[in-house]
Amino acid sequence: MVEQHAEPLYRISSTTGETQMATAVKIQQTDWTALRTIFGDRFSDSAAVRDHHGRAETFYPAMPPDAVVYPLNTEEVAAAVGFCNEQGIAVTPYGTGTSLEGNFLAARGGLCIDLSRMDQVLRVSADDLDCTVQAGVTRKQLNTELRDTGLFFPVDPGADASLGGMASTRASGTNAVRYGTMRQNVLGLTVVLADGQVIRTGGRARKSAAGYDLTGLFVGSEGTLGIITEVTLRLYGQPEAISAAVCEFETLRGAVNAVIQTIQIGLPVARIELLDPLQIRAINAYSRMNHRECPTLFLEFHGTPAGVAEQAESFGQVATENGGGNFHWATNTEDRTALWDARHKVHYANLALRPGCKAIATDVCVPISRLCDCIEETRRAIDDSGLTAPIVGHVGDGNFHVVLVFDPNSADETQRAKTLSEQIVAIALAMEGSCTGEHGIGIGKKAHLVTEHGPAVEVMRQIKRALDPAGIMNPAKVIDV
Amino acid sequence: MVEQHAEPLYRISSTTGETQMATAVKIQQTDWTALRTIFGDRFSDSAAVRDHHGRAETFYPAMPPDAVVYPLNTEEVAAAVGFCNEQGIAVTPYGTGTSLEGNFLAARGGLCIDLSRMDQVLRVSADDLDCTVQAGVTRKQLNTELRDTGLFFPVDPGADASLGGMASTRASGTNAVRYGTMRQNVLGLTVVLADGQVIRTGGRARKSAAGYDLTGLFVGSEGTLGIITEVTLRLYGQPEAISAAVCEFETLRGAVNAVIQTIQIGLPVARIELLDPLQIRAINAYSRMNHRECPTLFLEFHGTPAGVAEQAESFGQVATENGGGNFHWATNTEDRTALWDARHKVHYANLALRPGCKAIATDVCVPISRLCDCIEETRRAIDDSGLTAPIVGHVGDGNFHVVLVFDPNSADETQRAKTLSEQIVAIALAMEGSCTGEHGIGIGKKAHLVTEHGPAVEVMRQIKRALDPAGIMNPAKVIDV
Repeated sequence: MVEQHAEPLYRISSTTGETQMATAVKIQQTDWTALRTIFGDRFSDSAAVRDHHGRAETFYPAMPPDAVVYPLNTEEVAAAVGFCNEQGIAVTPYGTGTSLEGNFLAARGGLCIDLSRMDQVLRVSADDLDCTVQAGVTRKQLNTELRDTGLFFPVDPGADASLGGMASTRASGTNAVRYGTMRQNVLGLTVVLADGQVIRTGGRARKSAAGYDLTGLFVGSEGTLGIITEVTLRLYGQPEAISAAVCEFETLRGAVNAVIQTIQIGLPVARIELLDPLQIRAINAYSRMNHRECPTLFLEFHGTPAGVAEQAESFGQVATENGGGNFHWATNTEDRTALWDARHKVHYANLALRPGCKAIATDVCVPISRLCDCIEETRRAIDDSGLTAPIVGHVGDGNFHVVLVFDPNSADETQRAKTLSEQIVAIALAMEGSCTGEHGIGIGKKAHLVTEHGPAVEVMRQIKRALDPAGIMNPAKVIDV
Repeated sequence: MVEQHAEPLYRISSTTGETQMATAVKIQQTDWTALRTIFGDRFSDSAAVRDHHGRAETFYPAMPPDAVVYPLNTEEVAAAVGFCNEQGIAVTPYGTGTSLEGNFLAARGGLCIDLSRMDQVLRVSADDLDCTVQAGVTRKQLNTELRDTGLFFPVDPGADASLGGMASTRASGTNAVRYGTMRQNVLGLTVVLADGQVIRTGGRARKSAAGYDLTGLFVGSEGTLGIITEVTLRLYGQPEAISAAVCEFETLRGAVNAVIQTIQIGLPVARIELLDPLQIRAINAYSRMNHRECPTLFLEFHGTPAGVAEQAESFGQVATENGGGNFHWATNTEDRTALWDARHKVHYANLALRPGCKAIATDVCVPISRLCDCIEETRRAIDDSGLTAPIVGHVGDGNFHVVLVFDPNSADETQRAKTLSEQIVAIALAMEGSCTGEHGIGIGKKAHLVTEHGPAVEVMRQIKRALDPAGIMNPAKVIDV
């Protein structure tokens, strides 16, 4: 049976700041014999393994599964899900454990399916600019394997996440402004459904009008409708020329306005990232860099040598008009890698600002014309809160992150962090934005999803009930049924 | 009550070639008083109006609705659907009636909702490169209204279709290779559900990881899950420079290989269309042009003046290596407009090849590496059939069309056309392709959808049942429940 929990699933004590699980009413012990037989030593219910799979990098309390399996292929995932379906126990997929909204926590216990050993690149077609990978292949692993083909896969969340996990959370990253998010770059999926059946969605044709877009439905469904086991991805030719730059601004408004104008004139910038002064301080310390602590854009241009030069010149004009200057160019691979590596590690850099603290890593996305207002209002709310909270983001998409670093032992700080994170979402929603540009809903943003989408959430519930009638697929995530 | 039909809904007589509707068992007459009251003279059950809404441009037999309403806004659509839900009668949305797979035919009678009077552009944001339109706004109307903003909307099926209809069928067109299809260009929707409720999906943020991608689900669902009443669309800045070209090839293989190599080297061509010699003959006659009757590519490059020149030079090299030459450039607006106008009218040009004939307009899409094999095998099948069937297509996406022109009074020709259209799909599916790149499933390709997607079609059925339990929304389209 599905374990019965009283809601709320977790709460942060208002007096001690400690996080506590609501008491589970366990109806019966699961007999794991069938899974032990199939998976052998790739099944574990040891405390250490369960604990490892029940901890997030952000502020969520531990929610360990009752057992973990490590399948090697789709058939084994199907067998595991089939078992859970028969037993009526919850099943939660696990990639690299780097998602930020508790997306993989075992909120109802049950079985965790760790896909990290499904790490095979199954097929690369350089001619068709596509590939198919098992869900556990990470983005860096794929790009390493692609290195000699002249191709690359652009979607790059901060962590070296698994591509199955990235599909599940509709991840994006620094390149999305040019190359799109997982929504645009997943061509097809293999999915294990709640009853253990296997389907293939989409396909290898670049476009299709054949039936409902199930690929799009499963991308971003966070394992609540099925478990993604294989992903067919678009690839891109490595650009002939790449040039990266750091551009300093006197004011946040100047930096953001430069971004807005860059997008509005249609400059095909590959990356355009904003870091506020506190974020610069954090990466200077963590990644041993020496950037001036001011509102800063990290940029990258892709194209032909002439095209890159043309783009850089156009951007230079926009930047100058908005008080930007003191360009630092990084044209060699080593400097570029160091720059983006520092950018990708901001989450850890921010945690290092206050050792021992926890973080709420929230992200919102607004129409680009509202970006300046949204960031300024957010900055004021942060200042009013007195919290340590750098702003960093994929501003070319209107998307930015705030990492709220707080002391979990201080009830007051914890409460202020929670209040501030709610405020940040409310500011973005009031500007026709989304409560999450790329982290997903997970456990933490279910109420915001309802605020953002209203009656449409009931349609999501209908789909959830239709595809997962017993409610075993990553329960308590995205929507409450 | 929903009218009960014996399957098949229609059949082409094997002896006479005539198409016949299966007999409808009408359980009760609908009392339309409520709709007459709401819609006044925007309600009609006259034979002429019903007949007009029951006829397709392709070979499908007439399937008239029992009545037609012309709403002006979402609320009126909701009222009409709510009425149909209470009465248990079928409801079919109608845009411009230009879709090619019988997508809007009233296969179960009932109410047709003609959205053509919902023709308001509700909002254009030049700053955010987006707009919101009512579903009945056509693509040409939108671009006319955008003319002074410096923006344009790129998706361009042959017909001047409505944007709601284009979203419903996941339409694309000549620009998709550069700008994507409706899948990539719809940011959000207003949808009337089967029970008459109204939801809004997606939003104005450029990306979002908030919940299931309902926008993607409704785009391409052909009115079977709900009726799209408003569409929020991405817009693009009009390119600084545009250059179009016609390039002749000695062989079909040479032309197709030039396309494949163009895509593989990552040239950001805006349009790249293949026309076979028969297609050239048809447009020469219909649009009064004088192209040589040989395998031909129509191309267009968008960008900065320098970028367009660079692209054209790169393409020229690829073309020359594949036996292409004799470029005709069209850099002024008038020549370009004439070129693409002729391309957009191929359907009518092909029908004019044999006056009085009907057409099956099929389209398939394959991975680009298989395009040459697929087109050659298709050409052989056409030649073996002895039918008149030009090939034309958006080959940069691996997508092409075959228009099978046949005499409906010849049972033999009709049968050969049906057999050939099945063969063409089978050839594409065997090459990991899709049975339709852009026309949709409608009535005609339901069996092919099952062949292409197998068990995934059962998931589509579960979604259909969940969102439209009474089966009133555009019944008998896409999937049989």
